[in-house]
Amino acid sequence: MSRPSASAPIGVFDSGLGGLTVARAIAASLPGETLIYLGDTARVPYGTRSAETVIRYARTCGRALAADGIKLLVVACNTVSAVALDMLRVELDLPVLGVIEPGARAAVQASRTGRIGVLATAGTVNSGAYPRAVANVSSKGEVTQLAAPLLVPLVEEGWVDGEVPRLVVERYLAPLIERADIDALVLGCTHYPLVRDVIEAELTRLSPKPVQIVDSGVAAAFELAQLLTDRELRAPHVEGQRGELRLKVTDRPGRFAEVASRFLGRDVESLAVQQIDL
Amino acid sequence: MSRPSASAPIGVFDSGLGGLTVARAIAASLPGETLIYLGDTARVPYGTRSAETVIRYARTCGRALAADGIKLLVVACNTVSAVALDMLRVELDLPVLGVIEPGARAAVQASRTGRIGVLATAGTVNSGAYPRAVANVSSKGEVTQLAAPLLVPLVEEGWVDGEVPRLVVERYLAPLIERADIDALVLGCTHYPLVRDVIEAELTRLSPKPVQIVDSGVAAAFELAQLLTDRELRAPHVEGQRGELRLKVTDRPGRFAEVASRFLGRDVESLAVQQIDL
Repeated sequence: MSRPSASAPIGVFDSGLGGLTVARAIAASLPGETLIYLGDTARVPYGTRSAETVIRYARTCGRALAADGIKLLVVACNTVSAVALDMLRVELDLPVLGVIEPGARAAVQASRTGRIGVLATAGTVNSGAYPRAVANVSSKGEVTQLAAPLLVPLVEEGWVDGEVPRLVVERYLAPLIERADIDALVLGCTHYPLVRDVIEAELTRLSPKPVQIVDSGVAAAFELAQLLTDRELRAPHVEGQRGELRLKVTDRPGRFAEVASRFLGRDVESLAVQQIDL
Repeated sequence: MSRPSASAPIGVFDSGLGGLTVARAIAASLPGETLIYLGDTARVPYGTRSAETVIRYARTCGRALAADGIKLLVVACNTVSAVALDMLRVELDLPVLGVIEPGARAAVQASRTGRIGVLATAGTVNSGAYPRAVANVSSKGEVTQLAAPLLVPLVEEGWVDGEVPRLVVERYLAPLIERADIDALVLGCTHYPLVRDVIEAELTRLSPKPVQIVDSGVAAAFELAQLLTDRELRAPHVEGQRGELRLKVTDRPGRFAEVASRFLGRDVESLAVQQIDL
């Protein structure tokens, strides 16, 4: 691996716009870094696709970001982290950080009993990546997974409070809590932080014991900061200046600004958005 | 256009598996026909993508079906019918039938007042294809469209009855009925027939006047039968024999059988499913 430059940008790859919640967490903990975000909006969502197809799409996107001269690649998408991380690590001449391993480590730290729940897409659940990652760091972890396919479209529609998301979250969580007696729950998809309040309220209502929520994106941003420091790759940061965020998407922007602003937690109108063909 | 053979199969193209509701309607009205169904499951859903991207995907799929020697192409997907039908008609040496024009004609016939509602994906709504198609057949039609993005994932999750779909349908329909005073509602997406009962119940509850439901897929199957008869292209039908249905998908089958059986209304285990790379 060639030595990257500390002043080079960090690449953030996601299947769509949800990974902007991860970019947001990175920008908050590493304000001096320049981020190039690539969302494969022409082929989103990955969560319902087979591993082979996700690997094919991830290869194309990873190469496109590598060609931009990034110093490190963050894979914000849980599904890609679950099935294509090894391929990206082998094929790209770069450090590659996913969200599953940081999320699993944070969950093991957050749980007292080792009984950990994971809420994710079908692709992530089927890969078994979270149970494997938890087993790698703890011998007493017991992971119960649940695919919650409706949460992504619900968040994209902007229905993040009120009766509909509450009922949907209840329908997913009630059997999980009944069955698995968890004390930590991993939000294993970039979209879920936007319904975190609903999830938190339902956990409080349904679970007899407190359940800690673990946001894999936040956990990844935390480990990223450590990794950059360890490798002396942190960009020099001038107090009060915010690093640039460059956005690339593979479909025509369209409703982009509205949805992206929601995930990023700030207005994206002022950001440069570029459409690329992959 | 070269003269196709009556015994050749009919191609049915859809962005995913939802178009099996249209294949089902065709098989019911034309039991002697062989159908080759292509679902682009590696890139589903199309409903949220830009017109340019949908056209690109539709071109690839249309060509693949044409290469199978079909006599006619039915575009089961409303989004593709809305934005890519002209392209397919120009580029393929075949008759091409979409679902929008038949749906619009059936709606004009069903409505007394001309006030027609259309429930569809964002892609179909943004294309304006339904209002245009209604205007082509009636000068007094007044179309009010509504994008209902949550209905597709709800149906794919199999949540087709109970409180969640009822609340979602209510949230979409209430303002439409309030605002537009419709007496006909087009189900402008292949998935919606599976929540037809919920839609019907909410229409009855919310609307002061009766509202006729129009299923574009059923309307297309009806016009297809007429078109084949007019052009002397109907396959010879032996009483009691059912025409073959061949399924092709672009992603690995996976949960395919479960979801496909739901749309088709019968078990697909016995059908041959082939995965193709496009």
